[in-house]
Order: sequence, then C-alpha cells, then structure tokens
Amino acid sequence: MPALKPPPAIELICVGAELLDGHGDDSHRGALALRLRAAGLRLARETIVPDDPEALEGAVRAALGRCDDLLVCGGLGPTFDDITREGVARALGRDLVFSPRLYAGIRRKFARLKVRPPRENRRQAFLVRGAEPLANRAGSAPGQLIVLKRPGDAPQTVALLPGPPREMAPMFDAEVMPRLKRAHGVPGAAVLSLHLCGLPESAADEKLRPLTRRAGPGLDFTILSGAGQVDFHAFASGPGARGRIARCRRQALRLVGGHVFGEGPATLESTVGALLLRRRLTLAVAESCTAGLLGGRLTSAPGSSAYFLGGVLAYHDSVKRGLLGVRPETLSREGAVSAGSAREMAEGVRRLVGADLALAVTGIAGPSGGGPGKPVGLVFAALAGPGRAVLVRRWLLSGDREAVRQRAAAAALRLLWKRLRS
Amino acid sequence: MPALKPPPAIELICVGAELLDGHGDDSHRGALALRLRAAGLRLARETIVPDDPEALEGAVRAALGRCDDLLVCGGLGPTFDDITREGVARALGRDLVFSPRLYAGIRRKFARLKVRPPRENRRQAFLVRGAEPLANRAGSAPGQLIVLKRPGDAPQTVALLPGPPREMAPMFDAEVMPRLKRAHGVPGAAVLSLHLCGLPESAADEKLRPLTRRAGPGLDFTILSGAGQVDFHAFASGPGARGRIARCRRQALRLVGGHVFGEGPATLESTVGALLLRRRLTLAVAESCTAGLLGGRLTSAPGSSAYFLGGVLAYHDSVKRGLLGVRPETLSREGAVSAGSAREMAEGVRRLVGADLALAVTGIAGPSGGGPGKPVGLVFAALAGPGRAVLVRRWLLSGDREAVRQRAAAAALRLLWKRLRS
Repeated sequence: MPALKPPPAIELICVGAELLDGHGDDSHRGALALRLRAAGLRLARETIVPDDPEALEGAVRAALGRCDDLLVCGGLGPTFDDITREGVARALGRDLVFSPRLYAGIRRKFARLKVRPPRENRRQAFLVRGAEPLANRAGSAPGQLIVLKRPGDAPQTVALLPGPPREMAPMFDAEVMPRLKRAHGVPGAAVLSLHLCGLPESAADEKLRPLTRRAGPGLDFTILSGAGQVDFHAFASGPGARGRIARCRRQALRLVGGHVFGEGPATLESTVGALLLRRRLTLAVAESCTAGLLGGRLTSAPGSSAYFLGGVLAYHDSVKRGLLGVRPETLSREGAVSAGSAREMAEGVRRLVGADLALAVTGIAGPSGGGPGKPVGLVFAALAGPGRAVLVRRWLLSGDREAVRQRAAAAALRLLWKRLRS
Repeated sequence: MPALKPPPAIELICVGAELLDGHGDDSHRGALALRLRAAGLRLARETIVPDDPEALEGAVRAALGRCDDLLVCGGLGPTFDDITREGVARALGRDLVFSPRLYAGIRRKFARLKVRPPRENRRQAFLVRGAEPLANRAGSAPGQLIVLKRPGDAPQTVALLPGPPREMAPMFDAEVMPRLKRAHGVPGAAVLSLHLCGLPESAADEKLRPLTRRAGPGLDFTILSGAGQVDFHAFASGPGARGRIARCRRQALRLVGGHVFGEGPATLESTVGALLLRRRLTLAVAESCTAGLLGGRLTSAPGSSAYFLGGVLAYHDSVKRGLLGVRPETLSREGAVSAGSAREMAEGVRRLVGADLALAVTGIAGPSGGGPGKPVGLVFAALAGPGRAVLVRRWLLSGDREAVRQRAAAAALRLLWKRLRS
C-alpha cells in the first residue's frame, strides 16, 4: 500500500460573544467535522473568539499561517456586533466594498416578506475586496468566499459562513464543499454511516470491536449516540477507499445488522415513512406525554402527507376519555399511564382518524407526577393495526423532562419500525 | 462613575481529537463560561486542538501572551494520546517530574475498586515541575495548577483539568474558582436577559442603540436571535454592577418594552403558560403544517397540564373535515391553507376539546405544495376565544421546511401571548 499523506487541514473559527457567554448554538463543529471527514479532509483546530475585530484579525492571521483552508462562522448579521467582515478584511489587508447587487438581493428578500429593511441590513451588502458572495437560502446573511493565491504553494480558500447552523450547513454543502474537493482532489475518500436502534452505545462498541480494532492510517471509525439511536461511521481515505468501505459495510452488517435501521442521510422517521409508503399504509398518533413530538418528527420528512393523516394530543384525561374513548374504568383502575390506556388510546385514534396504523404514547415525563410503582420516566406505547393486533410496550427512560419526552418519541418510532420491517 | 477595567480574561484550551471529529462531550465551555461570568470574569477565547503536543504547545504559548489566566481541559488520561502534561510543560519550558505521592494515591483508588492499575496509569503521576496536584473526586486523572510569576505584572494561573465535564466541573469549583476570585478580587457582577418577540433582530438592534452604544469596560451587550425570538443580554462587572444593570433594564424597557415577553430563564411557552394559569384559562391546539411542534413547545414547560388540554393534528384534510368540522366548501373554495380554514380549525378544536382558547395553524412548509398566490412559507393562524372572538393572522415565513414549521409555531405562540397580555 502506498504511503498515505495526512488529509488537508481545515481550520474553523467561530465568532460570537454568545458562544463564550455559555449559550448560543454550537453545532457547527460537529456538522462540519463529519462533512470534512467524509470528503477525506480533517478539521485541525477550532478557535472561538468574541465579537471583537482585533481578536478575529489575530485568529485569522494565525490560522492562515497553519492551515490549508479556513472556515469562519458567524458574525455576518446586520448588527453592531457582527464584525466578521471587518476582522477578516483587516487580517487580509483588504478593504470592504459595497455591493449594490447584493443589497438589491437583500431588499428583495425583505420585500417578499412585506417588511421594510432596517438601515442596519445595509451592512450585510459589504464584501471583502475580491470576495465572491455565497447565496443564503435560509436567511438574510450572504456568505463570502475568498481564494488567496500563495506563491509556490496551493491557493488557500477562506469561506465566511453565517452563524445559525440551519443557514451554515446548506451554504457549506452547496458552495464550499465542492470547491474544497476540487482544490484538494483527495484521491478517493469513502464513508459509511449506519444508524442503529435498540442497542446501547457500549454494546454497539463491543459488538463492532472486531471491525473497529482494524483502524489505522486511512481507515477510522466513530460511534456516536444520541436521540435514541447509535450512529456508526467509518471513514476511509487514499487509494482503494471505496473497496475498504464496502468490506467494512459487509462486516458491520454481519455484526449488528439486526439493529441497523438506515444508512447515510436516513433518519428513523424517514425510514418509517418509506416503509409506510411502500406498504401503502396510513398512520395516526395519539400523544400524551410527548404532546406533539412524535407528530412533529413524523412530519419533518418532506412528503409525509402521503402516509401521515394526523392524530390527537390527549394531554388531559378528559381528551383521552372524550375524544379517544379511553374507558373511565381503565383510567381509574390502571391510570392514564398504563398498558390499558396506551392500548385504548391507539385503538381510539385509529378509529377516529380512519388510519391503517395508530401509535400511542403515554408516560410520566416529570419532574413531578411520579409515585410508588410509577416513577418518572415510565412510558407505555401501543401500536394498533393493521387488522386487530395491538402491540404494547413498557419502558423506563432516564433523563430530565425533555430527555424522557424525546426518548419516548424515539422509542415509539423504533416500535413502529420493527413492526413495519417484519 | 469610576473608570472600570474590563473583566479579567480567562482563556480555555480543550484537547482532544474526538472533539474535532464531531463528537465528544463539549459542555466544558458552557459550564465554565457561566461560572466565570457569575464571578465577574470572562471567557475570552476557546481553542480546540487535537492530541498533538506541538499543537498544544503553540496554543498554550499564544494564549499566555494574551490572557490573565488559562484553563486547559482534557488529555490528562493514562493513554498514549493523552499529551496535555507534555505539551504544557514544553510551552512553559519546564520538565515533568514523577510524584511518588501522587502515584500512591492513584494506586489506592484502583485498590478500592479491586482493580490492578494498568501500567499506563503511571503517566498520570507526572507533574509539570512546580505544579500543585488537584484532587479528582470523580475520576482517576489528577489536575494540576501552576502559578506563573510575571515581573511587573499579576501572576498568571494555569490550571490543567480533566476532560470529562463530570470530573472537570467539581474540580474547577473546589480548587480553581476560589483561587481566581482571590487573585482578581472582582467586586461584583450582574446580568440582565430580556426576551423579545415580534421584532426582527436588526430592528431590535436599532431601537436598543441608545443603550448599547454605552458599552465599554465593565458593561457589555449581546443581541441574539433564534426560534422566532430575539434575546438581549447585558453584563456588568466591577463596583456598582447591580445598579448599572438596573438602569440598563429600565432603559431597555423604555426602548423595546412592548416587545419584551420575559426575563431570565423565561421562554415564550413558559410566559404564555404563566398567563394562562393566572387567568385560569385552558388551551387547545389544532395543527396542520406544524403537526405537533406547537403542542410540543407548550408542554415543554413543567406543570403545563394545568392549562394545556390537548388538541388535534389535522394533517390530512379528512381530519380537518371529519374531526374538526372544517366545512367542505371552505376547503374547496379557499383551500386548506386559508383564513377560513384556520378559523374553522380553531373553532372546531375549541368545541371538541372544551377549552377556553384554541390556537390553530395551517400553512405550506414546502419544499413542494406551493402554487400561484400560495407560496411556500404562507401560514395562517387563528385564535378562538374567550367568548366568540376569533383572531386570524397571515404570515409569509422564510426558510426551508423545518424553519417554516418552527417559525410558524413561534408566530402562533406570539399571537397567543399578545392576546393574553392585552
């Protein structure tokens, strides 16, 4: 095997006092790190600086002295503390130029929303001299891309991206990644992402050990857990990367295949949606403790109207009784958080909405509401249909109120997935 | 007013390849930032470097040239890639010395667990020359504290802390924070957080300018936007911090008070919940495009069962018609995304659930489903009750499918808030 060069080093600078104040969304690094690795590049360092042009100027200068390319996230907004344009221009020894075309575009966005653009938004129409604007489909702040020629060395790309990850990620994918790939011509990088459910992270780690212990130059692995699932990623780079990833995939499926619900961009809700569509089944939900989280996830997949009909948020017992037809005896004898209530909620919403399948969740999310025999974290789910069958499951979920609710929705989706693939 | 020095600048370096691979627990910054702020100190920068002694050495040198004190988290474990001791020693031009006492302590920990300490754990008994060990009550890696005397300047503290936040935070609280407080003798710190809605970020910035332009040493401001709201934070430190924050609060309320829905930890849903509770009103929802997001937010506040009864996810028109009683003529003439449908959905769910108030949302989240006169992002909301009154609103929201859905839920909550406070 030929010697493998280390992958090109990309640095990330995030700008924002809010990040250093202990709040502010900081999923940039995760999102970018996985994308870069998948392309055979590596995130070599992240620096977080406050909204201070001097601090940013110094950080940009230092990074450009070390890295192959530089991503700067945040500080492109319209307000006084959005200083990225200015700090980067200073670091590059360039000035800022007003772009009438960019400003017209920003004004059009506001016109569409029937809002007069505040004067501050004019700031967003300034470009570092020589920069190319990058379109922002999800917000108002345009990005900027600057290519620095270096005598005797490969050109360096500097991309300025908006702070909100929702705006940053699509801009990076559409505008920046293709250029980085062209610039570095990484000789084959391949990636595998398998999504597992119903297996704790440590158990997944143990089962996958025969594969992961083969990590080395040009092949490495990551196991991540969160949102009720475990994600297994394998990254290969260098010659033969695709073949090595194909072998990894076969081995991984042998080791944990029974738990794999999807690959690549698939989510549990998109996987369930595809199965419902293929089997021409419709779905309804009845939610108590999750109160919409399950419906919200199921409909996050575009096209979900083809199989998701709707449902009932049965938060108060009067709604369980009056609308879903849960029997008063069930509520008084077993309680609202019980196998019986879950079953009757599922049957009730299925009848009411006229769906092929119905999924119901009821539980104690806390912090209060727990009691002897019914602790916080106790959750029941029921899946009614097709036909007369009703599956009921009981789980004891850990975490605070929000974690229990999120895990309950994930567990219910897992139940549905298992039923649909069988 | 006495001249105020800016708060002492603390820098943070996190060491760990896993952080740059897009995973690894990264709650250090949040945990430390809030602790420092509350003590009148500030986190001035964070740098994340891989497990590479040279990279760490460079980062430590650069940080010591800028900051008052330095925290280094991670890389204190027993394995080959735990390089923090070595990297920091190099940066300070010191060597590492073996501490038999520290090693005895580590061996005792393993003995208690009835485990023979692996040879690797000997690495954890090396101290940077001149460092004081810091006890780790939650794990095996001892911390280290080094005080650097600087001629003509205040001494600089360098603390090496373990990576896992569970071990780091208690060690910081017990061993490091008291020394930082003694070293800097910060006399006071105060903070203000106001949450606004119904005002774009740039407009909030413009209106708050008379206040924010007074930023300077000992007083600074941040404006953040996200999830359909704008957050305004003010931080004061030094003598009279509380008084200055109280004056900021009064001025901010004069400038944007009509848009302020809450302070401190309040969210739009907790604020709405408190108003419903105070006015003894119950609420139901009917959701089409948001399909649970509104219910999910309303019930994220503990205790929401006191006012939130439930609702209907009316995703498919058959549910709007059959369950909520939206008239077929309304659906065929105006369409499912219309003022008429929103109104009938709100009236229908209010009747069905028996709530005092009902909030309905219907819209086109995209990516498909738009058409002439009804673009993606068009959303109608209706608020029925108390009494016979029904308010209907129309918005054109920007962003992708998920952004439109989230913004629609936020806009509906704003509508409810405005109605409740009037």
